[in-house]
Amino acid sequence: MENFNFYSPTEFVFGMGRESECGEYVKKHGGHKVLLHYGGGSAVRSGLLDRVKESFEKSGVGYCELGGVQPNPRDTLVYKGIELCRCEGADMIVAVGGGSVIDSAKAIAAGVPYEGDFWDFYSGKAPEKALPVGVVLTIAAAGSEGSPDSVITKEEGMLKRGTGADILRPKFSILDPELTQTLPPYQTACGATDIMAHVFERYFTNTKDVEITDRLCEAVLLTMVKETPRVISDPDDYQARANIMWAGMVAHNNIVGVGRQQDWNSHGLEHELSGLYDCAHGAGLAVIMPAWMEFVYKHDIMRFCQMATRVFSCDMDYACPENTAYEGIRCFRNFLHSIGMPINFQELGAREEDIPVLVEKLGIGSGKRAGFVELSSEDAAEIYRIAAHAEL
Amino acid sequence: MENFNFYSPTEFVFGMGRESECGEYVKKHGGHKVLLHYGGGSAVRSGLLDRVKESFEKSGVGYCELGGVQPNPRDTLVYKGIELCRCEGADMIVAVGGGSVIDSAKAIAAGVPYEGDFWDFYSGKAPEKALPVGVVLTIAAAGSEGSPDSVITKEEGMLKRGTGADILRPKFSILDPELTQTLPPYQTACGATDIMAHVFERYFTNTKDVEITDRLCEAVLLTMVKETPRVISDPDDYQARANIMWAGMVAHNNIVGVGRQQDWNSHGLEHELSGLYDCAHGAGLAVIMPAWMEFVYKHDIMRFCQMATRVFSCDMDYACPENTAYEGIRCFRNFLHSIGMPINFQELGAREEDIPVLVEKLGIGSGKRAGFVELSSEDAAEIYRIAAHAEL
Repeated sequence: MENFNFYSPTEFVFGMGRESECGEYVKKHGGHKVLLHYGGGSAVRSGLLDRVKESFEKSGVGYCELGGVQPNPRDTLVYKGIELCRCEGADMIVAVGGGSVIDSAKAIAAGVPYEGDFWDFYSGKAPEKALPVGVVLTIAAAGSEGSPDSVITKEEGMLKRGTGADILRPKFSILDPELTQTLPPYQTACGATDIMAHVFERYFTNTKDVEITDRLCEAVLLTMVKETPRVISDPDDYQARANIMWAGMVAHNNIVGVGRQQDWNSHGLEHELSGLYDCAHGAGLAVIMPAWMEFVYKHDIMRFCQMATRVFSCDMDYACPENTAYEGIRCFRNFLHSIGMPINFQELGAREEDIPVLVEKLGIGSGKRAGFVELSSEDAAEIYRIAAHAEL
Repeated sequence: MENFNFYSPTEFVFGMGRESECGEYVKKHGGHKVLLHYGGGSAVRSGLLDRVKESFEKSGVGYCELGGVQPNPRDTLVYKGIELCRCEGADMIVAVGGGSVIDSAKAIAAGVPYEGDFWDFYSGKAPEKALPVGVVLTIAAAGSEGSPDSVITKEEGMLKRGTGADILRPKFSILDPELTQTLPPYQTACGATDIMAHVFERYFTNTKDVEITDRLCEAVLLTMVKETPRVISDPDDYQARANIMWAGMVAHNNIVGVGRQQDWNSHGLEHELSGLYDCAHGAGLAVIMPAWMEFVYKHDIMRFCQMATRVFSCDMDYACPENTAYEGIRCFRNFLHSIGMPINFQELGAREEDIPVLVEKLGIGSGKRAGFVELSSEDAAEIYRIAAHAEL
C-alpha cells in the first residue's frame, strides 16, 4: 500500500424526503445567499426545484438561480454562473441535479474567488479557494456529490477536461433515492455503468498487497451487479435505488481507492467519445471499458481472475487462468448489455473512421499515457478499434 | 435502508513516517498550543513521542503534556487533563496512542469548554462543543481515530460508559502502520478482534435490503480473516499491518454501518467484563461475541448463513440452513482461537460465579436492552454462561 491522504468532509444527508431540509443545511454550513444551479426541465416539472426553494424560504436563505446545465456541462454557462454570483453576492452554490450540474457548480465555485480564467483549473492549475457547494442529487452515477472532481467541456473544440481538489468536495450532499425513481431505464443504466467504471479504474492497479481496498471495490461491484437489474425491471424499487445511490458515492469519494495506483484511461478514452458525439458518459464507458480490459488483461492475468471469480462468480480455470480472466471481461460486457447499454461503436452511434480524430484529441502524441498499462497513441487507436467491433 | 446522516470530516494521513508531519497538521487545523496526551512507556521508549515533539517544534506549535492513560481509560485522568488544558490555554489535544488514549483525549476535549462535570456526557447528555482532537495512532483496534465515540471508566465502581457525537471526530488522524509493528501478537490479535466486532455489531441487523453495507462489512471481515494471521506469524509485515490499519478505520467510522439498525450488545456485555477484570477489550469480545451469536442466531438463520458463506467460505447446507449458520459461528470462534484469543471465561480470567454481578452492572433490570434480539437480564446471564463454557 502506498502512503496517502484521505479527506472527505462532506455531510451526507440520505433518505426519503430529505431535500426539504436543504435550507437548514445551507445555513448550517454558513450560506446566506445561494446560487441555485440546475439543468433542464425535470427538476422543474417534478416540483423538486419548488420544494428546494420553499426550504430556502423557510430557513431564511436568499437565492438567485441559473438553470440550463447540459450533459457534458459547458464552460460558457460556467462563465455566466461566475458573473451572476459576483453580481448577486452569492456565498454558496447549491446544485440540484446529477454529475453535470454538480461539476458545473464546482467550476463556478472555483471561478468566483479567482481573478484569472477559471479554465486555468482545467488546464493543470490547482484551485486554492472556492465557494462552498451543496448538492441535491437526482441521479446515482458520477459520484460528484462526494468527490473532489469536476469535468467541464470547452465549447470551442468540444474539449473535455477535468480538475480535482479537496476544497471542491461539497459541504453537504442530500441523497434522496426517491428522486431517482423517475429516471428512464437507459439513464439509470448509464449511471450504473459509470459507478462500476469508477471502481474498475481503481481496481486495476500495479500496487501490490491492497486487500482492504480490493475487497471494498468488490463490495461495490457486487452490489451493482445485484441491484441494477432490480431497478431496470422495476424503476420504483426504492430499496434497490437506495443501495445504488450509496454505492455511487462510495465508488468515487475514494475510500475504496486510497493507497494504490489508479488507471483512469477508460475515462480518458471515453471523454473523447462523449466530447465528439455528445453521447451519455455511461454509454461511452460501456463501449470503452471492456475493450480497454481486453487490450490490457494479459498484463496481469491473476488480477483479472480475481475480478472474474470474486465479482462475477466465474469458476477458476486453474489449468488455464487466462480463460478465467477473459471470461470475467465477457461477463462484464454481457452484464452491460443485459441492462440495455451499447457494447460497440454502432450501438453507441460512433464511427470507426473517426478513430484518428479521437486519438488526435486525446493528445498522447508520440508519448505515453500512464496507467495500469501505459498507452501510446497506437494503443489507444487499437482500443477504439476493439470497441468499434465488440460483440457478445 | 433507513434514512441517515454520515459526516466523517477527519483528515486521514496514512503511511510510513507520516508522524513527522504532525506539527503541520496541528497548524493546518488551527492549533497553536497542544495538550500532548499519551499512555505509558512504549511511546516514550520507542522515541515516537520525541519525534512528535520535534515536529511541533519545527512547526512552531507549543505544547504541554499528560501521560499515564491506562487501558480502559479513567475519569480521574480526564479531570486532570481538563484542568491542565484550562491552566495552559491549550486549544487542541493530540492523542499519541490507541483507543484508550484517543477516547481519553475526546473526553478532555468535550470537558474543557463545558462548565459542568464531563461525566454528564457519559450519562446521556450530548456534547455540543469540544476542543479539536488530533491523533497519532499506535494500534489498529478501537477505530477511535475515525469515530465519534469515546468510552471512559469511572474509577468509583469501575463503571464503563460511552458517548458519541460528530464534534468528537478527530480533525486529523495520522496512521503509520510501522508504529504497530512493535505490538506483541496478543495485543495485535485483541485489536483484530475489536475491528471484526465493530463490523459484526453493524452486520447483524433487522433492517432489510442493505446489500451495499452488507457487502462493505464483508469486505472488512474478509480482509481481517486474510491479513490477521499474516501479522501474527510475522509482526514486521508492513503490508498486512497497513491493510489492517485502514480496515480498522473503515470498520468504525460508520461508512459500513449507515442506514441500518445496529446491535452493540456484545460490546455492552463485554464492557462489564473489562470493567470488572480489567482485561483487554478485544479479549473480552473474543469470549462474548461468539457466545452472543450462539444465543441469537436462530432469530435470523439466513443472515448467519450469509456470514458463514460469504466471510468464512462455508458450503451452504440447503437441506438444513441452520447447520451452515452454526458452522459460521464455529469458524469465527476457531479463527479467534487460531490468532491466540481466549474463547471462554477460564482462558480470559473471568469467573462464572461473578455472572450475577456482571448482569447487575449491565443495568437492564426488569426491562429489555434493544438490538438485533432484545435482551433481558436473564438473556444476558445466559450469554455469559455460554461464554463461560465455550469450547472449540
